Amino acid sequence: MSEYAPSIEKLIESFERLPSIGHKTAARLAFHVLDWNEEETNAFISSIVTAKKNLKYCSKCFNITDNDPCPICSNPRRDQSTICVVEDVRDVAAMERTHEYKGVYHVLHGSISPMNGVGPDDIKIKELLSRLMEGNVKEVILATNPRVEGEATAMYISKLIKPMGINATRIAHGIPVGGDLEYTDEITLTKALEGRREI
Amino acid sequence: MSEYAPSIEKLIESFERLPSIGHKTAARLAFHVLDWNEEETNAFISSIVTAKKNLKYCSKCFNITDNDPCPICSNPRRDQSTICVVEDVRDVAAMERTHEYKGVYHVLHGSISPMNGVGPDDIKIKELLSRLMEGNVKEVILATNPRVEGEATAMYISKLIKPMGINATRIAHGIPVGGDLEYTDEITLTKALEGRREI
Repeated sequence: MSEYAPSIEKLIESFERLPSIGHKTAARLAFHVLDWNEEETNAFISSIVTAKKNLKYCSKCFNITDNDPCPICSNPRRDQSTICVVEDVRDVAAMERTHEYKGVYHVLHGSISPMNGVGPDDIKIKELLSRLMEGNVKEVILATNPRVEGEATAMYISKLIKPMGINATRIAHGIPVGGDLEYTDEITLTKALEGRREI
Repeated sequence: MSEYAPSIEKLIESFERLPSIGHKTAARLAFHVLDWNEEETNAFISSIVTAKKNLKYCSKCFNITDNDPCPICSNPRRDQSTICVVEDVRDVAAMERTHEYKGVYHVLHGSISPMNGVGPDDIKIKELLSRLMEGNVKEVILATNPRVEGEATAMYISKLIKPMGINATRIAHGIPVGGDLEYTDEITLTKALEGRREI
């Protein structure tokens, strides 16, 4: 016999399907949901239904959005001549949190990774190239993750776009602000040395 | 401007309403849900709807159940003359995991706590007494939590039922199995000493 009533077990299993939620946490979440009144329950469910129904990819930058084109692409105060290329929708959010970047984005939805069977055609590189063909772009900032796949993707794209006369730049690697030299891995330290600038 | 599309922000807020889920985890869960196909989404939502619709309290033991009376109360192989009194539905599950206890339960749904304005009438003590009035119960095991409120509740109930000629017992306090004397607090150690037995 299972520990809980079948309906609770099913609810716990549902929460266990979410990432980084183990059995104990799932049980805590399930019992919390059981304590909700009808209004709270409906709000939770409708937020899922609405998100699944409304969200789509922006046809220009492939960021996830309620409206196409997305608020960033359709914002006249954003510099359409600078495109920041990122791997994932969450990376756009991370960049936006800096409140420093005024250009637009292009979300690749992945990185080239032959080991995982992901080639250049499996991510939104073709779509980036057709944006660049339109001719108004001056700089492409390659902000893919500083890992093997991200580096390879950045290299691949930069080789494609340099012949087009567009500036391709890579975000800097180095020691994180507030970080500690002692605990920085040697590859990051090497990158930090290579990227040194006069002060 | 917010970082994400409004529908995503709402979904993240929904997950943030769950206990022990912060903003970053909520965002991870929200994006995971967005990756679900229709079938996975419907399974998740229906597990919530079904649980909220089907679950009720057992009219005998007040455990949460799909059917009334609950599977434990209606199981002829459980000893109906022994009632284990616990504070919460989750405590029933914890006891069941031992696979040792063969009696039935009574869930109080709380503990007496004057500080929080919870008196004896606010938890299922009256309901326990009417079960005992029926006359077939020989022993009541008080398995409330070993905290001030749980102890007070156990004392209160034991005083009520002893005049009825029913055996009232309290689960043992002591050092957890695998625990360390050095790191055991003094109250637990005192309880462990008091509860010593010949070997």
